[in-house]
Amino acid sequence: MTQWTSAVGAPQLARLIGSQRTADGNGGRRVPAYRALADGVRLLVLEGRIPVAARLPAERELAAALAVSRTTVAAAYEALRTDGFLESRRGAGSWTSVPAGNPLPTRGLEPLPPEATGTMIDLGCAALPAPEPWLTRAFQGALADLPPYAHTHGDYPAGLPALRQALADRYTARGVPTMPEQIMVTTGAMGAAAAICRLMAPRGERIAVDHPSYANILQLMRDAGARLVPVAMADGLAGWDLPAWRQTLRAAAPRMAYVVADFHNPTGALATEDQRRDLVAAARAAGAALVVDESMADLALDPALAAEPPRPVAAFDPGGSTVITVGSASKALWAGLRIGWVRATPDVIRSLIAARAHADLGSPVLEQLAIAWLMAADGWEEAIAIRRDRARENRDSLVAAVREHLPDWEFTVPHGGLTLWARTGGLSGSRIAEAGERLGVRVPSGPRFGVDGAFEGYVRLPFTVAGPVATQAATRLAAAARLVASGAAIEAEAPRTFVA
Amino acid sequence: MTQWTSAVGAPQLARLIGSQRTADGNGGRRVPAYRALADGVRLLVLEGRIPVAARLPAERELAAALAVSRTTVAAAYEALRTDGFLESRRGAGSWTSVPAGNPLPTRGLEPLPPEATGTMIDLGCAALPAPEPWLTRAFQGALADLPPYAHTHGDYPAGLPALRQALADRYTARGVPTMPEQIMVTTGAMGAAAAICRLMAPRGERIAVDHPSYANILQLMRDAGARLVPVAMADGLAGWDLPAWRQTLRAAAPRMAYVVADFHNPTGALATEDQRRDLVAAARAAGAALVVDESMADLALDPALAAEPPRPVAAFDPGGSTVITVGSASKALWAGLRIGWVRATPDVIRSLIAARAHADLGSPVLEQLAIAWLMAADGWEEAIAIRRDRARENRDSLVAAVREHLPDWEFTVPHGGLTLWARTGGLSGSRIAEAGERLGVRVPSGPRFGVDGAFEGYVRLPFTVAGPVATQAATRLAAAARLVASGAAIEAEAPRTFVA
Repeated sequence: MTQWTSAVGAPQLARLIGSQRTADGNGGRRVPAYRALADGVRLLVLEGRIPVAARLPAERELAAALAVSRTTVAAAYEALRTDGFLESRRGAGSWTSVPAGNPLPTRGLEPLPPEATGTMIDLGCAALPAPEPWLTRAFQGALADLPPYAHTHGDYPAGLPALRQALADRYTARGVPTMPEQIMVTTGAMGAAAAICRLMAPRGERIAVDHPSYANILQLMRDAGARLVPVAMADGLAGWDLPAWRQTLRAAAPRMAYVVADFHNPTGALATEDQRRDLVAAARAAGAALVVDESMADLALDPALAAEPPRPVAAFDPGGSTVITVGSASKALWAGLRIGWVRATPDVIRSLIAARAHADLGSPVLEQLAIAWLMAADGWEEAIAIRRDRARENRDSLVAAVREHLPDWEFTVPHGGLTLWARTGGLSGSRIAEAGERLGVRVPSGPRFGVDGAFEGYVRLPFTVAGPVATQAATRLAAAARLVASGAAIEAEAPRTFVA
Repeated sequence: MTQWTSAVGAPQLARLIGSQRTADGNGGRRVPAYRALADGVRLLVLEGRIPVAARLPAERELAAALAVSRTTVAAAYEALRTDGFLESRRGAGSWTSVPAGNPLPTRGLEPLPPEATGTMIDLGCAALPAPEPWLTRAFQGALADLPPYAHTHGDYPAGLPALRQALADRYTARGVPTMPEQIMVTTGAMGAAAAICRLMAPRGERIAVDHPSYANILQLMRDAGARLVPVAMADGLAGWDLPAWRQTLRAAAPRMAYVVADFHNPTGALATEDQRRDLVAAARAAGAALVVDESMADLALDPALAAEPPRPVAAFDPGGSTVITVGSASKALWAGLRIGWVRATPDVIRSLIAARAHADLGSPVLEQLAIAWLMAADGWEEAIAIRRDRARENRDSLVAAVREHLPDWEFTVPHGGLTLWARTGGLSGSRIAEAGERLGVRVPSGPRFGVDGAFEGYVRLPFTVAGPVATQAATRLAAAARLVASGAAIEAEAPRTFVA
């Protein structure tokens, strides 16, 4: 049964291959061009930067785009077929695959199922254990509140009234007066982002994004057919480069902009109130919707910042028609809870709800009751306090371990969030990720957070381990880096660089 | 802030308007052409057959497609603007809207939130209250099983191992040997369908569908950019017209076919084992994936049929590579639970999981534990027995009430499922739905279940009410039908038919 999810064009594939080459600053021995090309494609598939079952360009087109001979491409495709990374059928073309029996493509971002980790240290997803006893207490409270809901059909396209009210009250308490009609409960922040993209930026429209930005949302937008317009983040934690934002919003006229202003994923930057005000003004002037993802907003790790966080971006949008806010319980509380939400004008909320019947119908009722119970019982604050303590401990532990074992990796320690964005000392983050996979540490490489192969020289490290495990993770990453530096990352017997 | 979700082309809008006209067999007074056109568009928006914020064609194009004067279209658009159903901006075009303060567009399919029903009898969504005490027991069991999971990050892209195993065992017990590697847990059947469409039928590809078919899935496929190829169901409960299926699969060469073989939504038809075998053979011969939605499979309402149901469609696919099965707890158990699943080859499952990180990440853990607990405790069978009894009582009650109050409505009583597909005696189902909305009964019209405006002469009635409420629902529908027959459905003061 033939299947493919999408086609990868020759210029796109050439760009992705080219970005690998750029970052390959190591001094390994040369290998044949076809072999280097095959390895490059294999790496892109294993990393998930080309989807499984994606159609690859015809040999002639790729040869032209790469400026190599068609023989080189044909030999590379043949090598990929032999290794099980490509299937071809006469007349139908070639599409990517993963050899039977292999693990799933290690995108390094979707989580390794906990039961499958074995001895692998999983630095893939930025998610922590639940802040017990609050998860259990919340579900107990929800169960006590369930009976009247069990007598209904259970389908609440806008979300449970009790939760819409609790979320509205929380925004109001944070300085953004909000009515329940301005809230839609979604199935996670992903459900919120998908609904907003459908409404605000239909296929072919432009979306301006922080660069780097949250990988899963970038991919969701690509899947939705958006054209991503990256706006580079300033170095370190300086965050948003307002002249660049104004320039991009004016020149590219995107329909929407997506920004993680609170403990940005992956850099950890936190927008100042001035940056917030200026971002809103720039978006309003350009007629773009400013979508602000607050998934990390509750994760201030420095106590002073937790006590006095900056006001929400929506507070700088008096008319209320420019900013659309996305929130989620999955980062603040637990990823096993799939509840997110949108705050916007009642009109936008109505449009989002109207399109919901053919998206996901509604969100789980008991989970909504659990969040509503937590917020009513002040359990939310208690739970995130536990989570903050844990993330802070992990951050400090990881930072110390990386500084010790990878002294040439550069990063700025963020004041909140769940991730460290590390420059990998001139080595390819993709190759470190691949080598790490074999050495027992899973880590997502930089390009997952970029557009068109950017950030090859980075990896993202989440605050999910501490103590000896953090040390062990850093040790394994250091071993992976040594392997890459020696040019031996791909196959121990055939170190190589790309020479096509 | 300008926004639109999609564009409605002139030929498409002309077709939708034309289908309304065809079914308007009533003898109302004539109204001006512009007014009739405006009313037609308004009805399409209110029904959700044109989305809110959809761009309408330019006046000239629509005039050409409808073969009316441009003045007529201009006057119709002006009337729509006055009523708040259209917004226009010079140079940017016109897009649909809903007047401020109005209820959401009454698609008649997304559920009315229980708190908002008031005196409205909601026959919109085919969903029943939870089969207590089993919902509560399942959540109590899940809560007891939660602690080890709360210590993980909670993100299980394939689903919890315990639930994958329980679902595999259930298929094996139904005669289709299945390994856990063949199961992916999804967020409802909608999540399953969305993932399968992304993989099997990318944008622009054809999908063959039962005609009529489940409205939300048809709309999901349209949103995903699929080209729907309808295959007419045979009359009554005869179900699948195999020569038509073979012919369509051969001629249109769709990438996949979507079939509800067990208590088809909306007709209630049940495929015989011969039909199942032949459908699989036809799909295999045409190289199409056969996606079988079993959401209703547990809802045999006749006890003999419940005791001895036909074997699953997958049982007629020995190689296992043609059929992809979708299941869900939302119809069998409760719509407030958002758990569905896919059964396919391990390869297809791996591809679906790989794409999940940028769709919904994972499904709620506690809900998965609840379903696994129910299946381990035989609670699943007990719960669906309760649900069957309730649906059977509702069916019999509704059938009696409709026969009494709407004697010229035609239907065949199905042996299972949750819906009655009723021919509305030559009146427009859309207009009955609109009139019903004002008379206190919400019901989805036929065209929601069809492609390009088909089934204007039908409504779908779900088995969700009984006794005096069923009688009241039928009485209100009869009043709505009388209103439509008198030509007064749209505005009491201006009965009309479309005369352009």
